[in-house]
Amino acid sequence: MIPDSPSAETTIQERQPLRVCVLGATGLVGRAMVRLLEERQFPVAELVPLASAKPRTDHLTFRGESIPVRPVRAEEFAGADLVLSSAGGDRSREWLPVAVEAGAVCIDNTSAFRMDPEVPLIVPEVNGDLLDSISFGQGRIIANPNCSTIQLVVALEPLRRAFGLERVLVSTYQSISGAGRGAVERFTQTTRELLEGGARAADAPPAFDVLPLIGDTEEGGPTTEERKMLEETPKILREPVPMDVTCVRVPVFTGHAEAVSVQTKFPVRWQEALQVLSKAPGIQVHPGTIPPTPAQVAGDGLVHVGRVRPSQALEHGLQFWVVADNLLKGAAWNAVQIAEQLVASQRCSPVGA
Amino acid sequence: MIPDSPSAETTIQERQPLRVCVLGATGLVGRAMVRLLEERQFPVAELVPLASAKPRTDHLTFRGESIPVRPVRAEEFAGADLVLSSAGGDRSREWLPVAVEAGAVCIDNTSAFRMDPEVPLIVPEVNGDLLDSISFGQGRIIANPNCSTIQLVVALEPLRRAFGLERVLVSTYQSISGAGRGAVERFTQTTRELLEGGARAADAPPAFDVLPLIGDTEEGGPTTEERKMLEETPKILREPVPMDVTCVRVPVFTGHAEAVSVQTKFPVRWQEALQVLSKAPGIQVHPGTIPPTPAQVAGDGLVHVGRVRPSQALEHGLQFWVVADNLLKGAAWNAVQIAEQLVASQRCSPVGA
Repeated sequence: MIPDSPSAETTIQERQPLRVCVLGATGLVGRAMVRLLEERQFPVAELVPLASAKPRTDHLTFRGESIPVRPVRAEEFAGADLVLSSAGGDRSREWLPVAVEAGAVCIDNTSAFRMDPEVPLIVPEVNGDLLDSISFGQGRIIANPNCSTIQLVVALEPLRRAFGLERVLVSTYQSISGAGRGAVERFTQTTRELLEGGARAADAPPAFDVLPLIGDTEEGGPTTEERKMLEETPKILREPVPMDVTCVRVPVFTGHAEAVSVQTKFPVRWQEALQVLSKAPGIQVHPGTIPPTPAQVAGDGLVHVGRVRPSQALEHGLQFWVVADNLLKGAAWNAVQIAEQLVASQRCSPVGA
Repeated sequence: MIPDSPSAETTIQERQPLRVCVLGATGLVGRAMVRLLEERQFPVAELVPLASAKPRTDHLTFRGESIPVRPVRAEEFAGADLVLSSAGGDRSREWLPVAVEAGAVCIDNTSAFRMDPEVPLIVPEVNGDLLDSISFGQGRIIANPNCSTIQLVVALEPLRRAFGLERVLVSTYQSISGAGRGAVERFTQTTRELLEGGARAADAPPAFDVLPLIGDTEEGGPTTEERKMLEETPKILREPVPMDVTCVRVPVFTGHAEAVSVQTKFPVRWQEALQVLSKAPGIQVHPGTIPPTPAQVAGDGLVHVGRVRPSQALEHGLQFWVVADNLLKGAAWNAVQIAEQLVASQRCSPVGA
C-alpha cells in the first residue's frame, strides 16, 4: 500500500541496523509506525516500544516476535539511533530532549517542536532536501507536520513550483481517528447508541454530525487545528501564503479530505494542473468524474487529488479535492519516510564526509 | 421551533381558507410541509395530499384527521388555491402547468423552474418583496431555491447590504436527508452493516465517508448540485457574485453546514459583521466559541451562523459557518413561509386594488 521509493529500497537493508524507540507505541499512530517499520523492512536492530506507565497493551508483535511495551524512562534512550514519537506534545517536550542528549535522531509527530526555528518541519516530497545535513548520531529533532497540513502541501508544492501561489482557501473534512484511539471507541459507541434511538451526550464525538471546532478557539479567531495549518504550511513551502482555513471533524473513521481553492500567480488551465500533479511525487491524481473518498484511500500512503477544475471566484485559480489516510501519510508513513530518507542519504554520503 | 412572524400570525387565520394540494406528500419534505401547515395554523379549507400511483403511505394525519393520499390527476387541481410541490423535477414539469392553468399558485421545491426568468426564486428574508405582485387565483409558479442555497443567501444578504460582496467561496457539509427518504433508509442500513464488520457496497450512501459528488459532473466542471448554488445565488441576491463551490455529502441525517469565505467590497471588522447578522431576519448568530452543528439545529427553522472571523486570504473579508435544517428552512419551511407571506399580503391589500 505504501509507494516504493526505489533509492531507499536498495539501501536501507544494507545499512547497519538501528536501535529504534517508538514513543506512544500503543496509540493508533504508534502502531502504524511499528507496522510500517516491519513492512518496509526498515533496518531495525532492536525495537523498543515505549508507552506511559499504564499502557493499554503489554506487548506488540514485530517481525513475528512479541515485544514487551516498556514504560518510558531516560535509560531507554541510551544507545538509541532513532526515536519515533507520537505520544502527545507534553511527552515529546519531556522526553525528546533526553533522547537528543543521548545522540538520537527524533522524528516527532506531535506539535511540540514544529514551529521551533531550529527544527526542520519535513514532508519528504516537498522539503526533504533539508534532511541532507542530518545524520544519525547527531542528536536532532525533526518534526512531522500535522496530518491535514501534510496532504495539503503535497498537493500545493507542485502547483507552487509550476504556477506560483497567491492565496489558498481550505475547508477540511477530518476523520475521528485524528483524535486518537479513545475518540474512535467513543465515536463507535455513540454511533451505535444513536442508531438504537439513544440520546446524544453533550461531549460525545460528532456521530451523525459535523463540528468545526478541533482543539480550542477564541471568538473571532482560528482554532488550534486551523492555526497549525496556517503556520506550518508557509514553513514547509518556504514562502508566506495568505490562507483561509476551516477545520471540521466529520463522522468518518479514517481518512481526511480537503476542499481547496488556490489563486496562482500565473494563469493556469485545469488540464495543465492535472498534468503537473500527475507527475508530482506521492500523488495519485483522479482524472475523470469519480473523486477519491476517505474510506476508499484508508490504508494507502499516497495523497489523492481529484475534481481539479478552474476557480470561478479567484483570478488564475484552481479548485480541487485532496484525500489521504491521516494515520499513514498524515502521520506514521510521513515519519517512517523521513527515517528512510535519512538512512538512504547516509549510505550515499562519502565515508568521512 | 419555527420563528414567529407577527404580521403573518395575526392575519393568516382571518383569510378565507384555501384548498391546498401537496404534491409529493409522503416524502421527507412533503411530510414536513403538511406538519408545518398544521403547526402554523395555516388557513387550510381542504388539504389534498397527492403522490405517485403507488404511495408509500395510504393516509396522512392532518389536524387529527386521517386524510387519504391520492394519486395525482389533473382533476385534483380544480379549485386549488395553493400547490406545494416536492415530488421531483419531472413531476413538477408535468403537473404544475396543469395547476397553473387551473388558477393555483404553485410553490415548487424542485429545480424544474428555478432558473426560468419568468419564475421568481424566493427566500422571504432576501427577496420576499417579489411576492408583492402575486395573489391567489392568478395561476403562478414560485420557485423554492435549493436547500444549500437558501441558508447561504440568508447569511449573505445582510452582509451584501452592509459591506457589498466581491466574491464568495463555499464548501458544504450536506446531510443524507437531502437525497430523500430512500437514501436515509439505505444510509441507516449501510451504517449498521459497516458497524457489524460488513463490506461497503459500491453505490452505498457515504456511511463513515464523505463524497464531493452530489448529482452528476463533467471533468473540470461543477456538479449539478454546485451548479444550482452558482446559478441560484446571483438570481436571489439580484447581482452577479463570483463563487467557488464544493458540495459534499456527509454522513449526517439532517442539517446542512457550510464553511464560507467572502470578500466584501468595503472593509469590515468581524465584530461589525456579527452585529449586522444578529439584526438580520431569520438568523440566529452564535457569538462566543461554540459553533452550531447540524444535529443541534435539526427541527429548527432558523439559519444559524457561528465562527464569524476575519478572512486571512481575502482583502476585506470574512469567514463564517452556516447551519440550517435542510428539510425545514432548506425546503418545507421556506415554502410555507412564502405561502404565509402571500396570505398576509392579500389581507393587507386594499379590496379591489
